[in-house]
Amino acid sequence: MRKLNVAMIGGGFMGKAHSIAYAGMPMFFWPAPAIPHRMTVVDINEQMAKTAADRYGFENYSSDWRRVVEDPNIDIIDIVTPNDSHAEIAIAAAKAGKHIICEKPLARTAAESKLMLDAVKEAGVKHMVAFNYRRTPAIALAKKYIEEGAIGKILNFRGTYLQDWSADPNSPLSWRFKKDIAGSGALGDIATHVIDMARYLVGDITEVMATTQTWIKERPVQSGGVDKLGTVKASGDVQKAPVDVDDEVSTFLRFETGAVGSIEATRNAWGRNNFITFEIHGETGSIYFNYENRDELQVCFSSDPGDRRGFRTVYTGPAHPYGEALWPIPALGIGYTETKIVEAHDFISSIVNDTEVSPNFYDGYRIAVISDAILESARTEKWTKSI
Amino acid sequence: MRKLNVAMIGGGFMGKAHSIAYAGMPMFFWPAPAIPHRMTVVDINEQMAKTAADRYGFENYSSDWRRVVEDPNIDIIDIVTPNDSHAEIAIAAAKAGKHIICEKPLARTAAESKLMLDAVKEAGVKHMVAFNYRRTPAIALAKKYIEEGAIGKILNFRGTYLQDWSADPNSPLSWRFKKDIAGSGALGDIATHVIDMARYLVGDITEVMATTQTWIKERPVQSGGVDKLGTVKASGDVQKAPVDVDDEVSTFLRFETGAVGSIEATRNAWGRNNFITFEIHGETGSIYFNYENRDELQVCFSSDPGDRRGFRTVYTGPAHPYGEALWPIPALGIGYTETKIVEAHDFISSIVNDTEVSPNFYDGYRIAVISDAILESARTEKWTKSI
Amino acid sequence: MRKLNVAMIGGGFMGKAHSIAYAGMPMFFWPAPAIPHRMTVVDINEQMAKTAADRYGFENYSSDWRRVVEDPNIDIIDIVTPNDSHAEIAIAAAKAGKHIICEKPLARTAAESKLMLDAVKEAGVKHMVAFNYRRTPAIALAKKYIEEGAIGKILNFRGTYLQDWSADPNSPLSWRFKKDIAGSGALGDIATHVIDMARYLVGDITEVMATTQTWIKERPVQSGGVDKLGTVKASGDVQKAPVDVDDEVSTFLRFETGAVGSIEATRNAWGRNNFITFEIHGETGSIYFNYENRDELQVCFSSDPGDRRGFRTVYTGPAHPYGEALWPIPALGIGYTETKIVEAHDFISSIVNDTEVSPNFYDGYRIAVISDAILESARTEKWTKSI
Amino acid sequence: MRKLNVAMIGGGFMGKAHSIAYAGMPMFFWPAPAIPHRMTVVDINEQMAKTAADRYGFENYSSDWRRVVEDPNIDIIDIVTPNDSHAEIAIAAAKAGKHIICEKPLARTAAESKLMLDAVKEAGVKHMVAFNYRRTPAIALAKKYIEEGAIGKILNFRGTYLQDWSADPNSPLSWRFKKDIAGSGALGDIATHVIDMARYLVGDITEVMATTQTWIKERPVQSGGVDKLGTVKASGDVQKAPVDVDDEVSTFLRFETGAVGSIEATRNAWGRNNFITFEIHGETGSIYFNYENRDELQVCFSSDPGDRRGFRTVYTGPAHPYGEALWPIPALGIGYTETKIVEAHDFISSIVNDTEVSPNFYDGYRIAVISDAILESARTEKWTKSI
Repeated sequence: MRKLNVAMIGGGFMGKAHSIAYAGMPMFFWPAPAIPHRMTVVDINEQMAKTAADRYGFENYSSDWRRVVEDPNIDIIDIVTPNDSHAEIAIAAAKAGKHIICEKPLARTAAESKLMLDAVKEAGVKHMVAFNYRRTPAIALAKKYIEEGAIGKILNFRGTYLQDWSADPNSPLSWRFKKDIAGSGALGDIATHVIDMARYLVGDITEVMATTQTWIKERPVQSGGVDKLGTVKASGDVQKAPVDVDDEVSTFLRFETGAVGSIEATRNAWGRNNFITFEIHGETGSIYFNYENRDELQVCFSSDPGDRRGFRTVYTGPAHPYGEALWPIPALGIGYTETKIVEAHDFISSIVNDTEVSPNFYDGYRIAVISDAILESARTEKWTKSI
Repeated sequence: MRKLNVAMIGGGFMGKAHSIAYAGMPMFFWPAPAIPHRMTVVDINEQMAKTAADRYGFENYSSDWRRVVEDPNIDIIDIVTPNDSHAEIAIAAAKAGKHIICEKPLARTAAESKLMLDAVKEAGVKHMVAFNYRRTPAIALAKKYIEEGAIGKILNFRGTYLQDWSADPNSPLSWRFKKDIAGSGALGDIATHVIDMARYLVGDITEVMATTQTWIKERPVQSGGVDKLGTVKASGDVQKAPVDVDDEVSTFLRFETGAVGSIEATRNAWGRNNFITFEIHGETGSIYFNYENRDELQVCFSSDPGDRRGFRTVYTGPAHPYGEALWPIPALGIGYTETKIVEAHDFISSIVNDTEVSPNFYDGYRIAVISDAILESARTEKWTKSI
Repeated sequence: MRKLNVAMIGGGFMGKAHSIAYAGMPMFFWPAPAIPHRMTVVDINEQMAKTAADRYGFENYSSDWRRVVEDPNIDIIDIVTPNDSHAEIAIAAAKAGKHIICEKPLARTAAESKLMLDAVKEAGVKHMVAFNYRRTPAIALAKKYIEEGAIGKILNFRGTYLQDWSADPNSPLSWRFKKDIAGSGALGDIATHVIDMARYLVGDITEVMATTQTWIKERPVQSGGVDKLGTVKASGDVQKAPVDVDDEVSTFLRFETGAVGSIEATRNAWGRNNFITFEIHGETGSIYFNYENRDELQVCFSSDPGDRRGFRTVYTGPAHPYGEALWPIPALGIGYTETKIVEAHDFISSIVNDTEVSPNFYDGYRIAVISDAILESARTEKWTKSI
Repeated sequence: MRKLNVAMIGGGFMGKAHSIAYAGMPMFFWPAPAIPHRMTVVDINEQMAKTAADRYGFENYSSDWRRVVEDPNIDIIDIVTPNDSHAEIAIAAAKAGKHIICEKPLARTAAESKLMLDAVKEAGVKHMVAFNYRRTPAIALAKKYIEEGAIGKILNFRGTYLQDWSADPNSPLSWRFKKDIAGSGALGDIATHVIDMARYLVGDITEVMATTQTWIKERPVQSGGVDKLGTVKASGDVQKAPVDVDDEVSTFLRFETGAVGSIEATRNAWGRNNFITFEIHGETGSIYFNYENRDELQVCFSSDPGDRRGFRTVYTGPAHPYGEALWPIPALGIGYTETKIVEAHDFISSIVNDTEVSPNFYDGYRIAVISDAILESARTEKWTKSI
């Protein structure tokens, strides 16, 4: 069985998520398209790189991503660094002929993303952007229903991504609140997942009308580089610095299909944790998904008899997409790990089978274009083309 | 105990709802502020008026609303006709010195509503517009929490009103789909309930940015005047006529308080029936309400310890607003009837105690101004002042 | 239209519920089978009787139920007193040839219930016992599905009735905690509603195996006779007296059909209010109901394709039982009032049409036999025949 | 960092679950107590053993478990075979001085389990039985609340485990339906998980009163040995054979603490998939858990003010048990994998730290005693001691 050597650039919690995906993928998808081998992990701090290798089961480690990108033994570059370094690493990796999977959002801007897209196309390598939530079996099931015409022509897509981890003004100013590193705030960090779902399920987005809010204007400066996602609170008279990205974004959508929609994303919604939802209304049915109850998909078919019509709560399992590979009984439990295992499978399949996987850098670029249009629309208060 | 004589103009299902409210109010609120006496019911068809009197327990009936409005024995005029006749009846009733309760929306436009508001102010009578959903005890509890500061300064209000009763293109072209009678579609019919909640809970709305859709361009002409709300389907080669109102409306909101928000309303959401929801995010908490589970309110307080924080599901009962008057145990069951009983109580209290009740014609007028701004914004694709 | 004169014996919150049912029934069910006229209300305290007449809209009042029962103008005796007086009143009413509706449970014991049953059979009058929850449209829909064979042969019925209004040891010792008045505790007060549902939906119960608990052995003596259902808490060194009924009951069931089941009822479940649920498993489907979300019924059909199978959430409306009479859109709101209106309709129809209504005194007697068997089984710790 | 060599006896889906747990544990828990090394995997079919090694990442494989158990390089024996071989393997492993983790139930009977318990005690090795659901963070949080006294003295525990994978009479007669291999049916397969939770959260169980049902008396003989959990349906005139275990079990419980309870488990509940729930009523609060929504725990505290009391929905995350090790935001997603990773961690910690882990073979033995008592009680129809 073919083996593909992976070098992972960066750590944080995403390093954990990607590592278990490589370890687990062949266990779930068997025969596996290829065995991903955790070869090299990179951190600019050599000690942290060594720890990451021990922890995540990589054969070796390095503090020099440039050398690793050039390493002829490496087949895949996996980029899990903050957003500002995605482009530089990916472009170098593409030039070196490596297949690339990059954490989302693809980059800070459409322009930066375009350079990355051009690089992978030029190099002819496989590329993927890690919008993993789309890999939840229930969302793949939604796609299947839509493709089968089960809800008819889509009229409206309403998505949300609500969190509360930075609702506390004392949660620290991590890189996720800095425009020069992150590109944007809730928009790039979380709303892009829902934009990805909207494009996947409905079609591309041609125009947006948005508003953004920065509710908490300054936050305590974070000591140490680790991204704690707000779990560590500042206390006492800590120094504060301004936030220059959005805490919250709301946008209307127009799709190329004629459908309309909206997305609302915030990190200031007390009580919401990872509240990724969408509701899709079609001419002959509706679909509802909430990631917080991700084992299930709700679907209503207008063709059901009037006295028996209502949303069906379908728990995904062997009868549904990815079901044979995952667990033998619905509701045994789809977690974050499982979404990443499916992602790893689909990426590695695309390499082995020489096919395109989605979302790839083109999708990542399109999402960046839409994101830029959202920021522009919020600034100008006008409907703005996103295509 | 004082008795107030009521004349109800119009029937339909709203006649039923108002009649049971008058019958039941003193049973629930005791001692009652006054006993509403069902004196006269009016329908232009005399036979239907007679039937309505028998059915709804009115002492007598008439086919001439003008004469009834002038009747010195009548204290209260209750208007439950389609929207196009609200203004004429209300203005006449005000001139005759009657207290007035009028079904929502107040009228077809802000201009028409303004004439009604001027009339009741001029006459010095009491006035109410029947946005009854606000009377759900759980919504009154939301108001109480907000006034107590339990969720802090409000950042965002997101409301929905989703239905499916006209999602079928064969559901008939009742008056609710005709601009000359209804004024607007989903906007006036259902979105205004949520606008009312938004103003009640957050504050007035100063600016809107909206889109509207008419998904089903023509519908079968309805035979017979009764408003069946889409339950009777056309078949065969029935004649169709154009729909000239919105099936669906989405709007962003800016509040005078600095909060932002959105409302989405549609009658094309298969599987949604009376899905009136709002989610409010404040600086120190959140509130969620869904009318389909109306006995409960969900609330999250940021001040709860981190290991015990989450939305609390509070079932309203004796410990909550209107609780002493309603049922002795939470979840015994709040239905449509109970919301109308509370409404009747609050209106009649305002007459007896010579106080202002809300929502009154001023609120109805403001909602009409906001509704007009929503239609204007949808047409111009621009943020539009609504104050 | 025929008019039937009602005399209501007793008040409390049930007086309110029955009164609004009489007032509202013809408004909902039209043409009504007959118009129930609120003629006389009875309370042993004359002043309270007068107040009840004013509040509940009765034409006159009395403090002497015996005289009222004999009154030739009265057609219907409605018994809403505590359990210990049901038999005496009902037997006298039957002898006087009155139709009788009696609050649940029918009486304190099977023996007492048998006398009542014999009396109404002897007199040939119509009789009903007010297990109103069965009238929730969603439960009537469950019955319809079962009769249509939609879930196949029933295997198992699991019911609960969980409340918390007496979980606080300081909630007062109302009559509901006294065996000589109530007969039993949670069993008669709430579990009997679920026994009624089980018999209605599955069939009669032939054998039980039960346990009971009295968690709070004594409670503060209540001053004043009003039944506050635990909302008034005692404080200070109030006198306490023993509780001699069950706080909680759990029982296994065997049905004559071969199905099995269980019921668990308690008033000591913090956070549960009126948590009446059942889950029914059949050979080809399942049904789930929770009264706290009473507008909906959940049903799963095994015949659905494997990739679209799951519980459907059906909101009851015009397409379902009683739907034409109630509200024109699902989820507009079924409350306690609506269940009582349907009950009043079905009882009055049985009088006018000379048919048997269910649950009648025979059902009430059977439930009493089953209740006695439950207490006997809890005492002997053995499976006990209930037929 | 210490390394512990694991030999896994058996495959099936449990092999997958255990393998990813070993791979992922150090990624999540860092520094790890030790690194579990996947050394040897055993299947009686050598080709399948080889495949398992490739798939699950084991260094080598064998078809002779006896030789592997004696292998001095092996530290841990992991038993994931059907129930009838647990005892023989575990006793041999104990004699060889290996630490043992064994899938549940521990064995087919209490007698068999006792031999295993005696063996591990005699050998002084560490031992665990893999009731992994208890490791769901939300259940660990329930334990924490209970230990902190947050819901007071426990009165009642109600558990369920409802599935539908064998509700279809055409689902095959796998070993799970054969008494000589499985010991019992739904009881051993699923109810024991809930018995484990009950003992963990409330205390030991001293007496039971049970009923069991075998709804489907015979099933199609399965061709091939793989356990498909009912996903493969028979068709045509396939041969059938009798089922000699329970499809369904219901039992009352008495705890040594004075609490009471019930457990109901079935594999014949259409629409239920992995519906593991419990509701615990205490003197000052309640807890509700449903594994199908396993990221959350619901808890009600009686000490909350009356106007703000209700079940809180707490999503587990960094502020809760195991939270630091798992994902940085609540609702990112706990799946089956995560429960197995926590289990592996706790087992390996017990080896490294020389402490007892729970549930261990003593717990497994106690659960077997209780299971035997349940079968005995169902047979005799009497309350039966289980201690």
